[in-house]
Amino acid sequence: MMKFSPPADMKEGVHRLNVRVYFEDTDAGGIVYHANYLRFAERGRSEALRAMGVAHAAMMSEQGRMFVVRRANLDYQRPARLDDELTIETRTKELGAARLVLAQAIKRGAETLVEIELHLACVDVVSARPVRLPAEMRLALAWMMRSD
Amino acid sequence: MMKFSPPADMKEGVHRLNVRVYFEDTDAGGIVYHANYLRFAERGRSEALRAMGVAHAAMMSEQGRMFVVRRANLDYQRPARLDDELTIETRTKELGAARLVLAQAIKRGAETLVEIELHLACVDVVSARPVRLPAEMRLALAWMMRSD
Amino acid sequence: MMKFSPPADMKEGVHRLNVRVYFEDTDAGGIVYHANYLRFAERGRSEALRAMGVAHAAMMSEQGRMFVVRRANLDYQRPARLDDELTIETRTKELGAARLVLAQAIKRGAETLVEIELHLACVDVVSARPVRLPAEMRLALAWMMRSD
Amino acid sequence: MMKFSPPADMKEGVHRLNVRVYFEDTDAGGIVYHANYLRFAERGRSEALRAMGVAHAAMMSEQGRMFVVRRANLDYQRPARLDDELTIETRTKELGAARLVLAQAIKRGAETLVEIELHLACVDVVSARPVRLPAEMRLALAWMMRSD
Repeated sequence: MMKFSPPADMKEGVHRLNVRVYFEDTDAGGIVYHANYLRFAERGRSEALRAMGVAHAAMMSEQGRMFVVRRANLDYQRPARLDDELTIETRTKELGAARLVLAQAIKRGAETLVEIELHLACVDVVSARPVRLPAEMRLALAWMMRSD
Repeated sequence: MMKFSPPADMKEGVHRLNVRVYFEDTDAGGIVYHANYLRFAERGRSEALRAMGVAHAAMMSEQGRMFVVRRANLDYQRPARLDDELTIETRTKELGAARLVLAQAIKRGAETLVEIELHLACVDVVSARPVRLPAEMRLALAWMMRSD
Repeated sequence: MMKFSPPADMKEGVHRLNVRVYFEDTDAGGIVYHANYLRFAERGRSEALRAMGVAHAAMMSEQGRMFVVRRANLDYQRPARLDDELTIETRTKELGAARLVLAQAIKRGAETLVEIELHLACVDVVSARPVRLPAEMRLALAWMMRSD
Repeated sequence: MMKFSPPADMKEGVHRLNVRVYFEDTDAGGIVYHANYLRFAERGRSEALRAMGVAHAAMMSEQGRMFVVRRANLDYQRPARLDDELTIETRTKELGAARLVLAQAIKRGAETLVEIELHLACVDVVSARPVRLPAEMRLALAWMMRSD
């Protein structure tokens, strides 16, 4: 069987994931439905974290921690359309003990379509209280920031 | 505060819930995306169960049971469009100890748009093994079948 | 047949729509998926516009105009969960010739769960260029702001 | 810029596309929401068609034709979970002048999770009436069936 390897890439502190636009992503206006860029952004940062050795399911079951979104600011500049090939760029912008700010961009070739700033908190799965980011993730994220 | 009361109705063994089509439900073909009729159907049967005194969250946390979908057959006859007012009809078709077959229809006025047959199993939340339907739900569903 | 009438209300410049949380809205974290609050917000403002006599589909087909989202700022304060009854509040915050800023809130009873500021532009369906808001909508929105 | 190339493959009449399960795909039951397998299946067949030289957006704008789903039968055997790597298999089962039956399977490694039979009709974008499949697509699909 083929080993899964999403069309992703990381260099100079920027993680890039390529996604395609399907009917599921569009709406009757003929463009990508505005909420769905948040879905694309989640795919991008999930693969960025995975590239650093962190998978969500394992983080939840083994460490009892997960990320929750505290704030999302989306700046829509140009619409994406059916069959477009998009690139999701993910950068670490700020790094706290229990929080993380990411700068993400949805691009089509060189064009920026949507810019997203995302504030995440690391919380305990049961109590929902803030907890420290896993140490190895902090190291990886700090490295990602320096090389930016 | 307003008390929530969805535009629903039940008589002669048929539960009816009204929903509106928004941009979120449509795709670039200008019609409702085919997978989204399953979302409408879930809203209809959730409210049908609630009308019988069964809420999913309580069933999971208090009884450790939930429903999973085993089979879904969808017959698409006419497309729904943006701003349409739809009615979700839900009937009990078969009732077993740990399983349930529902006949659902998505209608626009008198027109049937999509017919859905749905096979559900009641399972233990932890083990995912089949377990008996809650007794009070069986009674309510049996009553619903008889009056059909 | 039952006439559709969503559980909505408007007074003192605030439109309120009630929605229920179903499985479709949640994720494996046990809470509503963060992107889905934008879907709830769209339902709220679609019904607010409809209460002013404006339906999206008619606006597109008869006037060749539609709204596109230019900016969305989401502040997530508390998570919503399966079976929750939520109220979507919609207020007009700013009103331009071809643009509109809405302040929306997702509440559970008196608790605010998510606050959303949404910038919309009215555009030509074909050219995607900004066009003036329909006159009757401007009047209705201006009235809504004054009474706030 | 990286050229997009989804993790896909075709041999012996079976097209395979790999996808990852993200939070967006799951629900509060901790598993993939049942409607979302239809989204995965659409990704699989969109890439299968693209591998034959057919893109949906071009088919709509240049030929005025699109596919609509007439029937979908889903057999859910095992649930997929967060972070799972899935393979979407797509086979041509029947081929008519204006219609197409596909057999699709969602697999995790060697395990089949969901089997989907999908009936598609090729319709005119404006009139929604059935029209013949594009000739080159019929040839490609016929070839795909023979080699199965």
